[in-house]
Amino acid sequence: MNDVLDAALDVLARAGYAAMTFDAVAARAGVSKTTVYRRWPTKPDLVRAALLRLVDVFPKARDTGTLRGDLIELARVRLLDDSRERERAIGLMRANLGDLDDQELRALGRLVTERAHQPIVAAVERGVARGELPPGTDPALVLEPIFATLQFRVFVMNEEPDLRSAEQLVDLVLAGARAGAAVRAGAADAR
Amino acid sequence: MNDVLDAALDVLARAGYAAMTFDAVAARAGVSKTTVYRRWPTKPDLVRAALLRLVDVFPKARDTGTLRGDLIELARVRLLDDSRERERAIGLMRANLGDLDDQELRALGRLVTERAHQPIVAAVERGVARGELPPGTDPALVLEPIFATLQFRVFVMNEEPDLRSAEQLVDLVLAGARAGAAVRAGAADAR
Repeated sequence: MNDVLDAALDVLARAGYAAMTFDAVAARAGVSKTTVYRRWPTKPDLVRAALLRLVDVFPKARDTGTLRGDLIELARVRLLDDSRERERAIGLMRANLGDLDDQELRALGRLVTERAHQPIVAAVERGVARGELPPGTDPALVLEPIFATLQFRVFVMNEEPDLRSAEQLVDLVLAGARAGAAVRAGAADAR
Repeated sequence: MNDVLDAALDVLARAGYAAMTFDAVAARAGVSKTTVYRRWPTKPDLVRAALLRLVDVFPKARDTGTLRGDLIELARVRLLDDSRERERAIGLMRANLGDLDDQELRALGRLVTERAHQPIVAAVERGVARGELPPGTDPALVLEPIFATLQFRVFVMNEEPDLRSAEQLVDLVLAGARAGAAVRAGAADAR
């Protein structure tokens, strides 16, 4: 069934959500429309599954042993190195997901993003456990400024961010976080 | 002519770029199609003018006298407070701009973003001049992690970020920048 999801990703990136049809996805995957419908009865079902697959097949980052190394490695494999998954993610960001109704969009956006962030959250938590950042550091407050900025550069500004500028961004956020500026509000009281 | 540009923004946010027509814009603005064409001969011309108008009418932030205050004020008027311009910006981010051809998209995205960033760059430069951040600090490296993150929270995650979480983000980035982590690569050698 992964062929169907890959076909759905391609159709979505090219045609946008509104113009995407089960016919086009089935034709591209070389299966019958019934095969697609049976597994994913609605367009939101199909799009959700396709986006989650995209997240799952994103190249894995190795554990480098340091938080700085892990964050740079995650940025590299996800956003700096060329890969089929990166090109697809860029195509999808530029494609029309805007006319999903608000409810669906909200749920889908959160689901895909949370799944995509899991390995980054885990890397920050390992860093906190090793004492590289203060206890109570909020992983979201470390990862968002780094990855939202890189996505902005790649997706909105159409830049090809180099490794050096990604490293500088990681160093800026880690310098602030080491100073305790990313400790969760109320975490100090809670301990 | 601002009525036409406002109409273009509304049509764009609702229909997306591909489905946007001069007929729809003219009808919504209550003018003839010729009036629109005469001033903006092509769809990219019209969209560019409309997006730049959106940037220009964004609520102005007052000069608070400190960099921290200015950044929080800019975040507040642009992304936290409800305004017609904010709703439109959200609508447009969710609308389909994806099928502008790559060349146009690249130029338009950069132009609108650079224009939107000007007041933030100016605020950082005032802060550097006052000695709040080290000389050679790169304004882009201060503003991007703050505003890309807030946009991610509002546009992608559909959160309503509160002032407190925006302040924490500003404090995180400023803590790193004060430590010299946002000084432009090579700036120390150049002096």
